[in-house]
Amino acid sequence: MFPKNDWYMACWSDELTDRPLGRTIAGEPLVLFRDGSGKVAALRDQCIHRGVSLSPGRIVRGSIECPYHGLVYDGTGRCVHIPTQDHIPTKAVVRSFAAREQHAIVWVWAGKVEEADDSKIVPYPWHDDARWPYRKGYLHVRCGYEMLLDNIMDLTHLPYVHPHTIGGGSEDDHIKAVMKTERTDRGVKFARWLLDSVAPPMYTKVAGLKGKIDRWQEEELIVPSVIVQFTGGVDVAQDAYHGGSRESGFGIRVLHAIVPETDVTCHYFFSVALGSGPHDPAMMEALLKQTLATLQEDVVICEDQQSRMSQFPDTTLVDLRSDEARLLYRRHLVARVAAERASDPENAPTVAFQR
Amino acid sequence: MFPKNDWYMACWSDELTDRPLGRTIAGEPLVLFRDGSGKVAALRDQCIHRGVSLSPGRIVRGSIECPYHGLVYDGTGRCVHIPTQDHIPTKAVVRSFAAREQHAIVWVWAGKVEEADDSKIVPYPWHDDARWPYRKGYLHVRCGYEMLLDNIMDLTHLPYVHPHTIGGGSEDDHIKAVMKTERTDRGVKFARWLLDSVAPPMYTKVAGLKGKIDRWQEEELIVPSVIVQFTGGVDVAQDAYHGGSRESGFGIRVLHAIVPETDVTCHYFFSVALGSGPHDPAMMEALLKQTLATLQEDVVICEDQQSRMSQFPDTTLVDLRSDEARLLYRRHLVARVAAERASDPENAPTVAFQR
Amino acid sequence: MFPKNDWYMACWSDELTDRPLGRTIAGEPLVLFRDGSGKVAALRDQCIHRGVSLSPGRIVRGSIECPYHGLVYDGTGRCVHIPTQDHIPTKAVVRSFAAREQHAIVWVWAGKVEEADDSKIVPYPWHDDARWPYRKGYLHVRCGYEMLLDNIMDLTHLPYVHPHTIGGGSEDDHIKAVMKTERTDRGVKFARWLLDSVAPPMYTKVAGLKGKIDRWQEEELIVPSVIVQFTGGVDVAQDAYHGGSRESGFGIRVLHAIVPETDVTCHYFFSVALGSGPHDPAMMEALLKQTLATLQEDVVICEDQQSRMSQFPDTTLVDLRSDEARLLYRRHLVARVAAERASDPENAPTVAFQR
Repeated sequence: MFPKNDWYMACWSDELTDRPLGRTIAGEPLVLFRDGSGKVAALRDQCIHRGVSLSPGRIVRGSIECPYHGLVYDGTGRCVHIPTQDHIPTKAVVRSFAAREQHAIVWVWAGKVEEADDSKIVPYPWHDDARWPYRKGYLHVRCGYEMLLDNIMDLTHLPYVHPHTIGGGSEDDHIKAVMKTERTDRGVKFARWLLDSVAPPMYTKVAGLKGKIDRWQEEELIVPSVIVQFTGGVDVAQDAYHGGSRESGFGIRVLHAIVPETDVTCHYFFSVALGSGPHDPAMMEALLKQTLATLQEDVVICEDQQSRMSQFPDTTLVDLRSDEARLLYRRHLVARVAAERASDPENAPTVAFQR
Repeated sequence: MFPKNDWYMACWSDELTDRPLGRTIAGEPLVLFRDGSGKVAALRDQCIHRGVSLSPGRIVRGSIECPYHGLVYDGTGRCVHIPTQDHIPTKAVVRSFAAREQHAIVWVWAGKVEEADDSKIVPYPWHDDARWPYRKGYLHVRCGYEMLLDNIMDLTHLPYVHPHTIGGGSEDDHIKAVMKTERTDRGVKFARWLLDSVAPPMYTKVAGLKGKIDRWQEEELIVPSVIVQFTGGVDVAQDAYHGGSRESGFGIRVLHAIVPETDVTCHYFFSVALGSGPHDPAMMEALLKQTLATLQEDVVICEDQQSRMSQFPDTTLVDLRSDEARLLYRRHLVARVAAERASDPENAPTVAFQR
Repeated sequence: MFPKNDWYMACWSDELTDRPLGRTIAGEPLVLFRDGSGKVAALRDQCIHRGVSLSPGRIVRGSIECPYHGLVYDGTGRCVHIPTQDHIPTKAVVRSFAAREQHAIVWVWAGKVEEADDSKIVPYPWHDDARWPYRKGYLHVRCGYEMLLDNIMDLTHLPYVHPHTIGGGSEDDHIKAVMKTERTDRGVKFARWLLDSVAPPMYTKVAGLKGKIDRWQEEELIVPSVIVQFTGGVDVAQDAYHGGSRESGFGIRVLHAIVPETDVTCHYFFSVALGSGPHDPAMMEALLKQTLATLQEDVVICEDQQSRMSQFPDTTLVDLRSDEARLLYRRHLVARVAAERASDPENAPTVAFQR
């Protein structure tokens, strides 16, 4: 279940070159390309003549040419050329979607183009901040996007899913973690501290951290599909939890854009930025590799979860206290979708909600 | 959607050797084999005893033996031997289909065996004409057969789908093509001329044609599933369009038998015959290779089309003027199927029509 | 279609080591593991918290730990540990199944745990009889389990399906086979004799048998899913059919546990034991290899059968006299399932019956 009236990450800016990109976002197959001015266009990926995909076609002077009979559509979806006739039927229009490009990300508004609200684009200035060099990646995942959001909203899974990457410390460290959860206007955020904890394998591999540290995990989920994370560790001597400086420690900023493709598959875009030097290529490569390894561990468990839940859609599940942040954002999401349904039943999302 | 009361190509004559052939034609899984006299038999590919396929069985004295418990069926589908008992139950009959062999092609009548009408078999004497040596091939395609018929009925796709094979010339050559379309008793035919046009890559590769030529494309679609094509090019000096001789040019005859397997898959049988010498093996091989490459380009686009249309069955499409021949044959096809439904509702085709 | 109130083989004893085993038995995904005392536990393979599979988790002191957030369940399915809270909700229980271990086999009762009836476990003492050393194997098969049971209940398929393994002799030998079928309390059994018959290839390869032998095939099917087989051959001079000794011959005992996974897939567990020496490893290996080859021939035909029957679920099939044993056990099976439905409609099997 996903709201339509919001922005979803559709691709990285640098994925749009001289060839169109076909990708399904929030259930809608899109062809993405740059128009004549370099602005991103997003159209339904289907020609109105014989129904084929446009994305295997060519970009011709900023418009997209159908690969079958050469019809050309501009960035607004209007057919501007039919090779075999001068008359262009008024119905020769493909649906267009609002697209924006900001901080190396291309966003698409899944609802009506005229209702696109730029103020709702999630800012991510770290991509343009030279002090935070970053690497990025992508995973295609066979589960509903909510399952991956859930995963991050309950970090008590770390010692079980990630013992060799970011789990680290004793299970006890994780259980005794200090957790502060807050509702926000657009979702939920929390700060989680593991005090006096052993540095996890990833921190040792990337930054050489050893011995006891205070670890923080700050996550902000902006419904429907973005999580902004700031996480790291610093020597216990700094007493960072009580306001001491984190600067001498190891800190990373992770963007998670977890975007529904269909009800049971999603796109996982991520970037990881390193705030404290050195930023030599080997270290950045190690950071990317460790982040990817960590996310792949999440993917394994969430794909299994999807498979089991699809098999037994009526299973009764039991919520625990560690589900607090998850339940908060889910309530927000349900309310959002319900509001869309009430205000515009015909265009409303209709797909089932993952539990 | 396909009519039942007609002949469909089921295989090439030389596919029927000493082993049975299993193939689904017009939704019906068939086992094809030669009976004692060499005549082709076509039975439903399923034993009446335990329901297994007969096609993995052996041919025993012109009858087919079930690979499970050895029941034997003759070419009419009658069970003639049950190893474990003398009594043959009256119900021990598998459905048989009328089959005919002509010009290297095996045809099967998809309707009731007693209604098979030999006069409706599409003649293709070129397969038996020594002046027209040919090569043949087969492709299994994951789209409704109508999509491939559509493809040939609108050749304005050539410059977009086939730039490296038979597209050739400028897009303009194709757009200015002279087109004459005619309804026929059994479908539609058209002649399309590209005058004063650059020889396409295939013609250069196969026959060494260079410079400006007049190209002709004559296609006759005999509903439901056969297209007979005569195409080629000749030096502009001959003025072939106004009746001048095509003999000094390059001319090929292509048979397209595009046969429904299921609603969304089909068999593409084709042969290509070369009328003007030399017919050395290398040239024939080049011709087959180029033809295959061309058809595979069509297959890519039609499989994409099927996939998109299956995803969005309610898309509204827009017809163009170049769809004339397509619309004519579609109307014929719809009328044929409607007539079958009216006259014999129980046996009528029920599957959806591809748009 | 399978009854729930019975034991199904779930795995071999030696499959349960220090790691849990996930396997779907009679439509139910199970996690199998040994509890602290070495006793086998069988739980529904799904955590009550977030719905993931338990089987990828660890065994911790005889209990199973969920791989996601570390919840721990004991062998009865009760949650005994939640890392993040002391309170264990009363609903934190996964369904458990009765499991028993006997003669190297782990059995699971597919019905309610409190109704498990130990007296119904099929004894197979040959696994613990030093005079009958055995080898065992497993095949995953894409057909309903009934199709493989049917296969063994009608051995007239031997000359057609197994000419190179156990078919042997002339088709006539098989047709003239003496057959005695009997209903039993729990299914059906039969003895089939091929008198004065040529030794089949398998017997020659494994035991060096040549020339004319009397062959016996004794099969007992215990509904729903076990067939106990004793089969072999002995020199005709012994007149074994009329009570002469079989000891100088070649005799094997085969256990077939053919267990539904889903309606259209099953597990085929088998063991083959050799009663007459020598039992050197090469001979045992040859026996296993030949048995496996034989069963794989059955698998090919039964998977084709499932595929055809799924395609044409309404085909009318015709029973033959050789179907006697098959029809007897099917009647028994239908009655069993009907009785379950009548006594406990809510928990009754609902899946369709294979014909």
